[in-house]
Amino acid sequence: MADESRKLPDEELHRVFRAAPFVRSVGIKLVTIGPGYCETVLRILPRHLQQNGYVHAGVQATMADHTMGGAATTLAGSQEYILTAEFKINFLRAATGERLRCKSSVLKPGSMLMVVESEVYCDEGDTSRLVSKATATMAVMTRNRKS
Amino acid sequence: MADESRKLPDEELHRVFRAAPFVRSVGIKLVTIGPGYCETVLRILPRHLQQNGYVHAGVQATMADHTMGGAATTLAGSQEYILTAEFKINFLRAATGERLRCKSSVLKPGSMLMVVESEVYCDEGDTSRLVSKATATMAVMTRNRKS
Amino acid sequence: MADESRKLPDEELHRVFRAAPFVRSVGIKLVTIGPGYCETVLRILPRHLQQNGYVHAGVQATMADHTMGGAATTLAGSQEYILTAEFKINFLRAATGERLRCKSSVLKPGSMLMVVESEVYCDEGDTSRLVSKATATMAVMTRNRKS
Amino acid sequence: MADESRKLPDEELHRVFRAAPFVRSVGIKLVTIGPGYCETVLRILPRHLQQNGYVHAGVQATMADHTMGGAATTLAGSQEYILTAEFKINFLRAATGERLRCKSSVLKPGSMLMVVESEVYCDEGDTSRLVSKATATMAVMTRNRKS
Repeated sequence: MADESRKLPDEELHRVFRAAPFVRSVGIKLVTIGPGYCETVLRILPRHLQQNGYVHAGVQATMADHTMGGAATTLAGSQEYILTAEFKINFLRAATGERLRCKSSVLKPGSMLMVVESEVYCDEGDTSRLVSKATATMAVMTRNRKS
Repeated sequence: MADESRKLPDEELHRVFRAAPFVRSVGIKLVTIGPGYCETVLRILPRHLQQNGYVHAGVQATMADHTMGGAATTLAGSQEYILTAEFKINFLRAATGERLRCKSSVLKPGSMLMVVESEVYCDEGDTSRLVSKATATMAVMTRNRKS
Repeated sequence: MADESRKLPDEELHRVFRAAPFVRSVGIKLVTIGPGYCETVLRILPRHLQQNGYVHAGVQATMADHTMGGAATTLAGSQEYILTAEFKINFLRAATGERLRCKSSVLKPGSMLMVVESEVYCDEGDTSRLVSKATATMAVMTRNRKS
Repeated sequence: MADESRKLPDEELHRVFRAAPFVRSVGIKLVTIGPGYCETVLRILPRHLQQNGYVHAGVQATMADHTMGGAATTLAGSQEYILTAEFKINFLRAATGERLRCKSSVLKPGSMLMVVESEVYCDEGDTSRLVSKATATMAVMTRNRKS
């Protein structure tokens, strides 16, 4: 429970974040990651849309989930990893624009569970609007130690 | 509000479902769609995984969201379309296997809101296990009518 | 992890359920409790209503939460207790009638987390209608053992 | 849709808030209500507790729900009223202390739906700690107009 065991080195945090093939496939990129916080960005492409021309709810949910997982990982120990137990996401307005930005913060750290929240903004020209808000329960899992 | 106006023809339901580029991009396929019900399938590929080798929460969330939207669309009128107001998804166990199946049912139809629920199963060999459960509030939107 | 340690005796389950002053104060009564399942009932009184004459969302939420906790407790060990990590509840229609009934089932047992779901029905005369549906994540806590 | 029709007079907001028998019965009191915002307080009594001596999740859920409804009501028209479509609440830590305070803000107003969020704090001596966080979808209903 010492500080050293609780904090993964920065390069490891980046590595964990990027190690998810689905997130790379969607095109979500890490912007900032630090203690209890993670921020990502996605350039909106035609393949991200749903049938009305808006960004698909699943794209926003994937971005929110992975960014919340990133924020939780910064507070986990070196022998721990994070799995999503649940999340809920409210969609506030239809998302159309050039870019999504997601900002996630740990609301309550814990050795067993962490509660994390997330806001997704959609940038179009000079304006940035909040398009969805999520809260998640993240489970802190322990890796099998090598003997 | 007559029956005719409430029910889209089958070919239209299939068209709406397939019209979402993100869902095609992820690889989710429609299996069955009928009054208040929708079922989909996804062959699990390496690009669907997260960093521990499990199917990413975002893949399951995308599948649940779109399949619930499909179920709600079957009960909407011909001048209406469905947008997700919110959903919540609980992940019950790590998903690994060959295929995801999602079954969504409308729990409460409505002219303004519909409540829909969804179960995602993961098939591996002969076994099929429930891996996530979601509930959503879907908003019934009216298209701008041509004059 | 033996069966004996996982199952509280019936009288203990009833005792735990009734030990919550708020639940007694609201008037929620235990009907059935068994492995992974709990059912409760509430006679609707004027003090349970909100400003439009419907049963208050908080009454339904309290009933759903406590009944889901009851269901989870049946699968906990004798040195464990259950705390709600989170729940979400969808209200399907305004609740008016004589009685609420709540049926809760464990969807996924676990040694750290349990996922539970719950349906609240409102009885009026001969009809019973589903008025709300909830899902919860319950945390399994360990009591401090006596030395 | 004029400003006048969108805003209820202050005395009417207080009246609506207090008109819910269940909220009076639990003991929740209005502190502040203004455009898009509502704050309430509850003096913790033995009857609010669950079986471990913590404030019952249902008390916090009731307080969050009604305070979020209050915040939404401030942005509704004079012929409209608010019903909760759904809410989700995460419990961050066991609540013990003298008083609960709930602060709710409208995240996204709307003529059909409003998204509201809520934080519940527990005060004990000089310290105040966040004990739960909720988000809700509120439906804007229209009263039957008298002819």
